[in-house]
Amino acid sequence: MVTIKDVAKEAGVSVGTVSNVINNIQVKPSTRIKVEEAIKKLNYEPNIYARGFKMNRTNTIAVILPTIWNPFFSELAYNIEKCLRKVGMKMILCNSNEDNKAEIEYISMAKQNKMDGIIAITYSDIDEYVSENIPFVSIDRYFSKNITYVSSNNFEGGRIAAKKLDELGCKKIAYIGRGSKINNATRKRKDGFISYCKEYNIDYEICELLGSTEEFDKLLDKFIESNFEDDIKIQGVFAVTDEYAVDFIKKLNKYNIKIPKDVQVIGFDGSKSSAKDTIEISTIRQPVELIAEEAVKALINIIENNKVKKEIILPVKFIEGYTTKK
Amino acid sequence: MVTIKDVAKEAGVSVGTVSNVINNIQVKPSTRIKVEEAIKKLNYEPNIYARGFKMNRTNTIAVILPTIWNPFFSELAYNIEKCLRKVGMKMILCNSNEDNKAEIEYISMAKQNKMDGIIAITYSDIDEYVSENIPFVSIDRYFSKNITYVSSNNFEGGRIAAKKLDELGCKKIAYIGRGSKINNATRKRKDGFISYCKEYNIDYEICELLGSTEEFDKLLDKFIESNFEDDIKIQGVFAVTDEYAVDFIKKLNKYNIKIPKDVQVIGFDGSKSSAKDTIEISTIRQPVELIAEEAVKALINIIENNKVKKEIILPVKFIEGYTTKK
Repeated sequence: MVTIKDVAKEAGVSVGTVSNVINNIQVKPSTRIKVEEAIKKLNYEPNIYARGFKMNRTNTIAVILPTIWNPFFSELAYNIEKCLRKVGMKMILCNSNEDNKAEIEYISMAKQNKMDGIIAITYSDIDEYVSENIPFVSIDRYFSKNITYVSSNNFEGGRIAAKKLDELGCKKIAYIGRGSKINNATRKRKDGFISYCKEYNIDYEICELLGSTEEFDKLLDKFIESNFEDDIKIQGVFAVTDEYAVDFIKKLNKYNIKIPKDVQVIGFDGSKSSAKDTIEISTIRQPVELIAEEAVKALINIIENNKVKKEIILPVKFIEGYTTKK
Repeated sequence: MVTIKDVAKEAGVSVGTVSNVINNIQVKPSTRIKVEEAIKKLNYEPNIYARGFKMNRTNTIAVILPTIWNPFFSELAYNIEKCLRKVGMKMILCNSNEDNKAEIEYISMAKQNKMDGIIAITYSDIDEYVSENIPFVSIDRYFSKNITYVSSNNFEGGRIAAKKLDELGCKKIAYIGRGSKINNATRKRKDGFISYCKEYNIDYEICELLGSTEEFDKLLDKFIESNFEDDIKIQGVFAVTDEYAVDFIKKLNKYNIKIPKDVQVIGFDGSKSSAKDTIEISTIRQPVELIAEEAVKALINIIENNKVKKEIILPVKFIEGYTTKK
């Protein structure tokens, strides 16, 4: 079996440097490339979990999600549990229902019950409650404190969507989505979209609102009436999530607008409701398995007092579905 | 506030009898009706959780599911966690992937970690590992041992489906589904379907197989070729789950068979992939919230050494979707 020593020898670096690369700790880019090439060449599979575990642990991790009853979160929780199980850890599942009081309660419960750490997806303002007393990894959400977070490359995802719609012949494109007061990663999808449009001088529009779902629904109706009803002024739409994309498509269907002939639509997430489900719409898929794996890896590193990068940003990719042209 | 004493007085029975009714313990049917009428009249809300808790508890429950990455199981887990949280208990989520080795490991983990109990949905043969040393409630699956189980009324669901298809004018109807070697509750759906057909002399067919999904897929193709391709010999189909119903509908679409005009289809489960999702096909909906609530209630009763019924069977109902005629 190939060991970490073989990789170090092949790359001409120390074992510690290889370990840093594997654990996402900053090394010189040229060194990283050398190590990654050696890993590839030798077909080395780092066993991220083969570490000495301390004994004073409960081996339980609290996973705080808005709700498990959602395709994206259930796929994520499925994968987190799988990674935790590999290292003999158990997952306590906490549904916050986006209630920040519940989130705070869960955090305090995790501390009181001496859980080993927390992995959380939270979209509310709980910065002051996230202490550094308990290992904490955030998914999708940036905290002002020194908290590690794992996220898809949302900015790049927005750019890819704009690029695709442009390449597929749309003269004018739009972004639709309900905004969030909290600076979460989804906002970067819009920023990436705009950045691409500006860079390549593409005509675009933003249909966004910081408000309730009902208010957004009304805004979307107006947006459709003025841009699609009489003639098609916008030929391509990027929606902040697949859910928004599907809702938008349902609305367009009522107006008898043909997809993808008249309007092409790209979502974001690429969630499947089960392992055997298929993705139907065109979308930017988040690497759910990798997010789970990196979050668990980072949490274990924090628990073991290893160095961890603050930002772990993972690549997304375009998946072609029926809502864009071939 | 209305108390259990008021209910007892109103119904003319003892407090113990009211408690038995609330906890689903066998009482005379006439007594049950009296108590239920008193509960309704006084608008009494039994606080099923307001009980003295012992101190030697970890307040953790292992919930073993085939996979959380599935609409039905994620809705169920969402509701179980909600009920457990109300009583200050935490849920350890365990995905078994229908691997009985994993299920056995989880059961032994729950014992070793002194968890307070287990709620499990298992479709494999683990009877000998389910000991009575740890409180255990099964959902959907009957065990040979003295294990409490909570289930939808699958038999009645099969009957309702057959009745609906008959009432909607189908001359011949069919049941489709992959079977299971383990005597699980889903089999009763078929039994209920057949029972209704026999009772009312309805022409029916069973398309079922104990085998792999691939084998079932082939069987289904043959079934379609002989019953739907040239002319429509079967006008109504009841599928063992929504998943099977959707797969079947997709196949019919390929043959250009119109739903519900040519063939009407009823599924089973009524799962939604999220709280805001809508059920599209016609189906027999399982009372997911109630299943979660009753399973938690039964488990707490077992933990507290109260009497618990062995079988807790809950009502299902027909939900009209686009796959049956109006």
